Amino acid sequence: MESVFQIFKKIPACRQAGKNSKARKSRLKTMHGKVDLPNFMPIATRAAVKNLTSDELKEIGAEIILSNTYHLFLRPGVEIIKGAGGLHQFMNWPGPILTDSGGYQVFSLAKWRKIKKEGVEFSSEIDGQKFLLTPEKAIEIQKDLGADIMICLDVCPAGQESYEEIKKAADITSAWAKRAKKVKKQAGQLLFGIVQGGIYPGLREKSAKEITSCDFDGYALGGFFVGETEKKIWQVIERSIKFLPEEKPRYLMGAGKPEQIVKAVKLGIDLFDCVIPTRNARHGLVYVNTKSQITNYKLQTNSKSQIPNKFYEEIHIANSKYTKDFSPVDKNCSCFTCQNFSRAYLRHLYLTKEPLALRLLTIHNLYFYLSLMKRIRENIELGNL
Amino acid sequence: MESVFQIFKKIPACRQAGKNSKARKSRLKTMHGKVDLPNFMPIATRAAVKNLTSDELKEIGAEIILSNTYHLFLRPGVEIIKGAGGLHQFMNWPGPILTDSGGYQVFSLAKWRKIKKEGVEFSSEIDGQKFLLTPEKAIEIQKDLGADIMICLDVCPAGQESYEEIKKAADITSAWAKRAKKVKKQAGQLLFGIVQGGIYPGLREKSAKEITSCDFDGYALGGFFVGETEKKIWQVIERSIKFLPEEKPRYLMGAGKPEQIVKAVKLGIDLFDCVIPTRNARHGLVYVNTKSQITNYKLQTNSKSQIPNKFYEEIHIANSKYTKDFSPVDKNCSCFTCQNFSRAYLRHLYLTKEPLALRLLTIHNLYFYLSLMKRIRENIELGNL
Repeated sequence: MESVFQIFKKIPACRQAGKNSKARKSRLKTMHGKVDLPNFMPIATRAAVKNLTSDELKEIGAEIILSNTYHLFLRPGVEIIKGAGGLHQFMNWPGPILTDSGGYQVFSLAKWRKIKKEGVEFSSEIDGQKFLLTPEKAIEIQKDLGADIMICLDVCPAGQESYEEIKKAADITSAWAKRAKKVKKQAGQLLFGIVQGGIYPGLREKSAKEITSCDFDGYALGGFFVGETEKKIWQVIERSIKFLPEEKPRYLMGAGKPEQIVKAVKLGIDLFDCVIPTRNARHGLVYVNTKSQITNYKLQTNSKSQIPNKFYEEIHIANSKYTKDFSPVDKNCSCFTCQNFSRAYLRHLYLTKEPLALRLLTIHNLYFYLSLMKRIRENIELGNL
Repeated sequence: MESVFQIFKKIPACRQAGKNSKARKSRLKTMHGKVDLPNFMPIATRAAVKNLTSDELKEIGAEIILSNTYHLFLRPGVEIIKGAGGLHQFMNWPGPILTDSGGYQVFSLAKWRKIKKEGVEFSSEIDGQKFLLTPEKAIEIQKDLGADIMICLDVCPAGQESYEEIKKAADITSAWAKRAKKVKKQAGQLLFGIVQGGIYPGLREKSAKEITSCDFDGYALGGFFVGETEKKIWQVIERSIKFLPEEKPRYLMGAGKPEQIVKAVKLGIDLFDCVIPTRNARHGLVYVNTKSQITNYKLQTNSKSQIPNKFYEEIHIANSKYTKDFSPVDKNCSCFTCQNFSRAYLRHLYLTKEPLALRLLTIHNLYFYLSLMKRIRENIELGNL
């Protein structure tokens, strides 16, 4: 039987002068098709990527999307989505879907929450209604949604929490992972465990060992990009990956900026999700490629810090210098927006609050991200990353 | 040389028992292609139909759109659109565009306005800046926009204004029409005059005679649906049409509800525009066909009043009865929305304020309107209307 996860290409160590790259090109098989990795998941929080249809997502090059268990659980409710035949049918997206466990949102959005051994109690930010989310319940919900990739319920503390709090969170996450693993999945569904431990290498090592002992289908690194310094993050991510098995996909939750994605791929990460491209679009910020060579996608190191050597710039479409700029956002971009509309027109739509502006800018930014992932895969294939 | 306006089919008088129908099927030639009439123009107020791209408008069946001189004059400004090569290039819409003169918006939106013999002074509702719009200037702006059909500047009083005020408005409108007519058009551009006169048959007759004496390419009936009773409107529209030449297209500005459009077509109107389908969509109201026969598109008359015999119903997508309704908005509808999404999903998107909701509902409502126009044309062809 064909393996669910296949690695096609690993960058040979030391291929680039003085550098170790652990980038790998791989493919993950799901119930709704294969996903080439490394890849990026646009976020369909409430069963829709903001402003876009499924047709547009496909056209942009999305292979897999992420949807939010917490939001869907509250609205419209799991029963409705189950009644529709699952999330794929409900939102009319035929490709793979990863659903998060709801853990992150319970900690960032719920009005009130209390962690118990059994699970997490929280009250809805919409109407204050109280719920108990257990590791088992989180899996049952994701089964009802029909997720291709489910995620174990975790405790996700803020970056500034104390060592003690972060240790406790990681310990509970491990205990809950063991319980989640025991829930019977649908045939073909994949389940990923989450490694916690904040910026403490020792906690990350312990968490990674405990989570990987459950033998999940893949591993997510959670609790990064929640308020820590960037320098610290990379050291700990690199360290954490050492304890993740080579033969399983690795997902860095909530990452990131384009240069962070390139950096993480070099460390051996396969899967990403982030609100940045879509949120930036809604704020009028769009990406323009400034360098054609992916070999430039690297961080420069000096004695004190790492400086991203950016291969793109962010422009604000409302800038008055685009008033009569009839060229596309990026003249080398093949997205629908750049093929059809000018900066001057997009600026006008954005300033007059025409809703079309947000759609067109979102299309461009997601296309930029998904094209970046494609170029990353091509460059791994060529041994260039 | 082929005529700009060709009538293919007129409903023979008295074909329907006891009724006179003046419905006609025709075609209008513009710089950007032909338009089959009767037809309906979606409104692209600020160089975009709210939530839709040009591709979607074409897919929905739009043949001609309307854009607003007043709004475009204020933002982004005519110079920018002219710089883009005209409105068609700016918004990437390849088909015909009718631009209104700005008269209606000056009277309904401007913070302050003063009618002078020379033109109308007004201050922008955006920043209070003062402008003088003359009949000549209104045409020059529409020339710069590159409109296929331009409209003469008129004075459009509210329905409740006095006879004296409405007479004065009609007189100025006639004087301005003569001046507008003298401005040199671009080759191929069409110019429509506007008949005013409120609900006073005598004023309408006078206005129609004065405006038609200028020999415009088509005639618009303005100043209807601005606060009058519906019964009064229809009598006056019918009367006004008597004074419009058979061989020129007739446009009833701002109309209307589906049953009003059918009624007006029977009176001999060819062209319509209205915010109702798009605005309703944004408020969650969508159309569902309830009768398949266009022969039912008629108003029933009793001794006291006219009652629309509706061939559709409006449903509110937020209604809780659609919570688990996995059927499309209209099971007989071929629009993108009905082909891909359920009432339950649309309800969820609408209630969670996902911007995609507004697009999908707008697509459905405009498709409903444009399909209605197509069915009207087919039925005129068959002599059934």
